[in-house]
Amino acid sequence: MQNESCCTGCSRPDLPWAGRGTSLPIAGCRFTLYPMTDNFIDIILGALEKTDTSAVWSETDALSTVYRGRLPYVADAVKALFLNAYREGVHMALEGQFSKGCPGDVSGDSVLERRGEAPNAAAVAGIHFPVHCKLALYPMGAADYIDEIAKVWYMAKDAGLEPATIHYATRIEGDVQQVFDYLTAVCEQMDKAENVHHYVLHFTMNCNSPTVDEE
Amino acid sequence: MQNESCCTGCSRPDLPWAGRGTSLPIAGCRFTLYPMTDNFIDIILGALEKTDTSAVWSETDALSTVYRGRLPYVADAVKALFLNAYREGVHMALEGQFSKGCPGDVSGDSVLERRGEAPNAAAVAGIHFPVHCKLALYPMGAADYIDEIAKVWYMAKDAGLEPATIHYATRIEGDVQQVFDYLTAVCEQMDKAENVHHYVLHFTMNCNSPTVDEE
Repeated sequence: MQNESCCTGCSRPDLPWAGRGTSLPIAGCRFTLYPMTDNFIDIILGALEKTDTSAVWSETDALSTVYRGRLPYVADAVKALFLNAYREGVHMALEGQFSKGCPGDVSGDSVLERRGEAPNAAAVAGIHFPVHCKLALYPMGAADYIDEIAKVWYMAKDAGLEPATIHYATRIEGDVQQVFDYLTAVCEQMDKAENVHHYVLHFTMNCNSPTVDEE
Repeated sequence: MQNESCCTGCSRPDLPWAGRGTSLPIAGCRFTLYPMTDNFIDIILGALEKTDTSAVWSETDALSTVYRGRLPYVADAVKALFLNAYREGVHMALEGQFSKGCPGDVSGDSVLERRGEAPNAAAVAGIHFPVHCKLALYPMGAADYIDEIAKVWYMAKDAGLEPATIHYATRIEGDVQQVFDYLTAVCEQMDKAENVHHYVLHFTMNCNSPTVDEE
């Protein structure tokens, strides 16, 4: 662990592996599930059991889990875990960061040959519930990063997710499936943006929140 | 809300207020507390009651709360809220993002005249418990952002926080007071860095985690 390098926590840009993260088609998502209930361990373990993670590389520590692989499979696994953890009436949040292209990125790239249907797609397609979501996008090393951020704001508007700008983030609202589709589309958009070689997309979504928004 | 602008969620870089966030001495922190217990509402409300937020501007929605003001007061209020929420044996996480200098940043700058001792400093100085923390720093618009990130990694090492690079983040370990001191020092370092005009520091810390790290 100590000798791995990573994006934005990167300590060793001088080492020989630097640059590998920019040349491989590898994305990742580091995330944490927060079920606000005494029963949180059962919910997390139960969701893990239902989720097929064969298409991603995975590592868990005391703070979070990271999935790495091709973007569609990473997004599929994270979405499935959250959907499989859903319990009616239980307030739960998912915090995560999708990323690709870190100059110091290494290892955890064992499943890049995977092709075909995402393994959880069919099993979770029928699960729907409303979520609140906030996101913050970081296109790194680009002087015109604000333009890229503005573009994905309009993507949310076009998708009917009612984006609202709040301090340090954008809020969106919608069905959990639509919100995951949007987050994945933002990553795909960053992949296409020629001036962005490294991006991170932080997001937090929750369901069954007891807090009513002030208007 | 709809008409405010913000960093990394910024949708309106073209509007006349753009630039104000870079000229005012205003920092902010958007954060969420996750007590993993049925009792989560009482814990959050109880902590809020104990925390003096007179030195910051504050706004809460269904996902998170934001404090804005001068950095020392913002850091004081966020730290106090987490410390005041601590319950022995209860697994709890705090997710947040400190930020300063967003080109589109506006409003919530009503308490910038505040001076003197941070209002919660004395009350929480005696509260100690170990935390795990992960952080990711985004110095925006700077081509050499990796160098800035490397600098703060070494600051963590010098502070005895045992930084470890993990995918997409840096892990640190220590007493909750030390960890908050470090996060604040990173923000101060970004303030001093001449090539960084806008930064965001994402962090997540937790206590009483039931997960034992794999070595």
